[in-house]
Amino acid sequence: MSTAEDTSEGADAASGEDLAWSEVSPEAARRLLVAAVGAFAERGYHATTTRDIAGRAGMSPAALYIHYKTKEELLHRISRIGHDKALRILETAADGDGSAAERLADAVTTFVRWHAAHHTTARVVQYELDALGDEHRAEIVELRRRSDAAVRRIIIDGVRTREFDVPDVSGTTLAVLSLCIDVARWFNVEGRRTPDEVGALYADLVLRMVAAGVR
Amino acid sequence: MSTAEDTSEGADAASGEDLAWSEVSPEAARRLLVAAVGAFAERGYHATTTRDIAGRAGMSPAALYIHYKTKEELLHRISRIGHDKALRILETAADGDGSAAERLADAVTTFVRWHAAHHTTARVVQYELDALGDEHRAEIVELRRRSDAAVRRIIIDGVRTREFDVPDVSGTTLAVLSLCIDVARWFNVEGRRTPDEVGALYADLVLRMVAAGVR
Repeated sequence: MSTAEDTSEGADAASGEDLAWSEVSPEAARRLLVAAVGAFAERGYHATTTRDIAGRAGMSPAALYIHYKTKEELLHRISRIGHDKALRILETAADGDGSAAERLADAVTTFVRWHAAHHTTARVVQYELDALGDEHRAEIVELRRRSDAAVRRIIIDGVRTREFDVPDVSGTTLAVLSLCIDVARWFNVEGRRTPDEVGALYADLVLRMVAAGVR
Repeated sequence: MSTAEDTSEGADAASGEDLAWSEVSPEAARRLLVAAVGAFAERGYHATTTRDIAGRAGMSPAALYIHYKTKEELLHRISRIGHDKALRILETAADGDGSAAERLADAVTTFVRWHAAHHTTARVVQYELDALGDEHRAEIVELRRRSDAAVRRIIIDGVRTREFDVPDVSGTTLAVLSLCIDVARWFNVEGRRTPDEVGALYADLVLRMVAAGVR
């Protein structure tokens, strides 16, 4: 269930969502995470019980407890995997070769593509932060701080080399990430645009936001 | 509880949220809507019961049923008021005097300010669409279509007068609205920026997205 790499419009939404979990083993633990994402996305974290999740995964509640002690542990694993992936995408782009404009376009394209292809997972990752326990929440906030720092670093580089003209670096960093993240809310696999097309459109719009190539 | 018009950073968050409901009467019906927004935002629509909402409003479940027959009716009223307000903001800006750039800046500033000042309400309005019944959902989708059309109209005007350079009008319209809507997700009354400051920053970023004043 985690082999399909195709995230194009025609791809099956469920297999697209499974991709993010390929690193989770054993298979039963992965199946439970995928079931939890589906349940949280459909009814919200607080309306979902561990019994619901076990049922969706075709397992007993007792089998669930072998892998996850609490519902919050499931949410934390989902949130951690999603935030690790986001950070990896943004730091890889920030550390890449090329001009600031090329690295910013790369960051936006890849980040948007992930939020489009994995929009159900991304919604849970983005909207259920308040349901995390204090310690887990602090850990995730730190990952978000580092994601923000990666994008900010590219923008600062572009300002320094005079590729970009950005009066408010922290505000623009916030807006760039926000624009990309909100793709998870509106993206529809049956819509007119593929994840790749949204990525290309957004890279262009973000380069305009930093006034790349204007001067 | 609905008199405070101040939406600045120092304003009480609860009174800021109440503003949107000033048109609802009698007062008990308004109190129930405010309670429903709080409950839905905190625990999600599906985890909230009408008993929870009545309790938050300091009323009995029987008193709630005088005003709202179902939980979905409460969500629909909230969604309808939020979407009516959004549409009014965007159509007023689109129909205003001034250049396309001035009208687009006005639309973004006002729309962002509303999403920041009423972020709790806006989250419920934006994230719980799937919980609406089919008929109510179709009605809200139509309001969203008209909001989209108002922004698109300003952008098309600007392209026609050569104020803007926009290769993908529908994609840019989608991105502008998405950027503004996502303010509801991240805005924090204790954060560094007031609703007015975010509005001004975003108006500048959106004018960059349409390449206003570049040529």
